[in-house]
Amino acid sequence: MVRWEGNARGRLEQAALDLFAEQGYDRTTVAQIAQRANLTERSFYRWFRDKREVLFGGDELEERFVAAIEAAEEGTDPLTMLMAAFKTAPEVIRPRDFLRKRGEVVAANPPLRERELIKLAALSQALTAALEKRGCDAQTARLATDAGMAILRLASERWMADENADHARLLADCATDLLAVLKPARRSRTDTVSERT
Amino acid sequence: MVRWEGNARGRLEQAALDLFAEQGYDRTTVAQIAQRANLTERSFYRWFRDKREVLFGGDELEERFVAAIEAAEEGTDPLTMLMAAFKTAPEVIRPRDFLRKRGEVVAANPPLRERELIKLAALSQALTAALEKRGCDAQTARLATDAGMAILRLASERWMADENADHARLLADCATDLLAVLKPARRSRTDTVSERT
Repeated sequence: MVRWEGNARGRLEQAALDLFAEQGYDRTTVAQIAQRANLTERSFYRWFRDKREVLFGGDELEERFVAAIEAAEEGTDPLTMLMAAFKTAPEVIRPRDFLRKRGEVVAANPPLRERELIKLAALSQALTAALEKRGCDAQTARLATDAGMAILRLASERWMADENADHARLLADCATDLLAVLKPARRSRTDTVSERT
Repeated sequence: MVRWEGNARGRLEQAALDLFAEQGYDRTTVAQIAQRANLTERSFYRWFRDKREVLFGGDELEERFVAAIEAAEEGTDPLTMLMAAFKTAPEVIRPRDFLRKRGEVVAANPPLRERELIKLAALSQALTAALEKRGCDAQTARLATDAGMAILRLASERWMADENADHARLLADCATDLLAVLKPARRSRTDTVSERT
């Protein structure tokens, strides 16, 4: 059952996802993925380095995000640059059905979880570097990226759970939630300062 | 040159670190590590599953943090629980010299970087689970953990750079810095709300 039709790459991704879900990641071979997608093994390797890469191929998201940061108006603060970048996500991400199933398959298979961590770390690094190029100091760039990634993760989770949700609005809501979680830091900071004086 | 003396495990860690720095991770064998530490290979495997694990052995940090969250007073908010947990870090972490060199070696060797990501993800998961046990909903627990880990990372970086820094004060400062980075989210939230009304 190929729900998300499209080019060869899309068919390979869907075939791999279905097979990983049906019989597990370890038991699935590249030959089986190619066969399910009605393609040859050769065309699999045209798109992906190895079996583990099939759910992580493509850097469209990273490219979009970095391009958006590069295009931000002079003087924009780092968090605003990141939020503007994240708003481009719906243009490139896969359909919800695909992403939901993908999330389950990744969570259930340690080698895929590892690759996901590496991909996310690479994305963070690219965003931090892009912010630094726009004049942020290294520590602020990293801190803003960490905050942004926390917001993006939660927004994506909620977006996957709610068919009718608006991605941009979710991003704004999650930023507010993160601020709320951090509120006690403001209070305790004041306490510490008054203790010192 | 064994700077950080101690038990067998500590000597193995230091020997591995020195060898990784001198000749690279790939070229170093478990036999060489054991020899440098004046121990047998057998005793290496008593402490560590494999060569990659030698710089990541031990879950003292995770155990301390989780215990601190479990011990927090009823009604404490999640960020405050995390910050109290992080304050126990200096009781168990290795000396600065060791950690600085370790950071360089990990950054220079992809297999170690991967293991570090996996370890950090496991720590995050343990903290999120501990917060949920204390009554946090899953999304807040995760968001607080993400914020906390961003604070801890930056505080650790500054702590390693400054011999005289106080770890608890750095944590409070980094929380304030994270709040400052997020300030534009508060403004844009207000804008959005007023646009809607």
